[in-house]
Amino acid sequence: MINVLITIQFKEDVLDPEGKAIAASLHNLGYSEVGAVMTGRLIRLTLDESDTARAMQKAAKMCEVLLVNTIIETYDITIEDGEENSA
Amino acid sequence: MINVLITIQFKEDVLDPEGKAIAASLHNLGYSEVGAVMTGRLIRLTLDESDTARAMQKAAKMCEVLLVNTIIETYDITIEDGEENSA
Repeated sequence: MINVLITIQFKEDVLDPEGKAIAASLHNLGYSEVGAVMTGRLIRLTLDESDTARAMQKAAKMCEVLLVNTIIETYDITIEDGEENSA
Repeated sequence: MINVLITIQFKEDVLDPEGKAIAASLHNLGYSEVGAVMTGRLIRLTLDESDTARAMQKAAKMCEVLLVNTIIETYDITIEDGEENSA
């Protein structure tokens, strides 16, 4: 059983209105030291798989076909023991 | 300037319908090896601050007052050089 963590963020030039709203709210609360704020999603899943390389491959495929809108988002896959793979 | 990563997840006994929907969709796509799926949010922000301990404290306060619904969610704060602090 392998634990996979997928973090998904907007590509750099994509507008992130939630991030902008959070930044404005923090400024209103007095946190003037806050600069850029970016939001994203995370998906944590367990895979009934023993090979981490294959788990990584499968997770990447899942990102491409379902989990991530690759037009506007990028993702990182982390296997819980620390390996990482970006796209 | 300190980069702060905040990851927010539902507490363990809170229903995560999006996670369940993702698990069902992955099963439908043939990924029968997928077990539990949990979703969460991530917020990445820059703080105009030099002391990491103080940045961590401020970020925790921001989580408590605005960013996190602490009734149903938990958060982790990571300063980009690796320190971590849970709640």
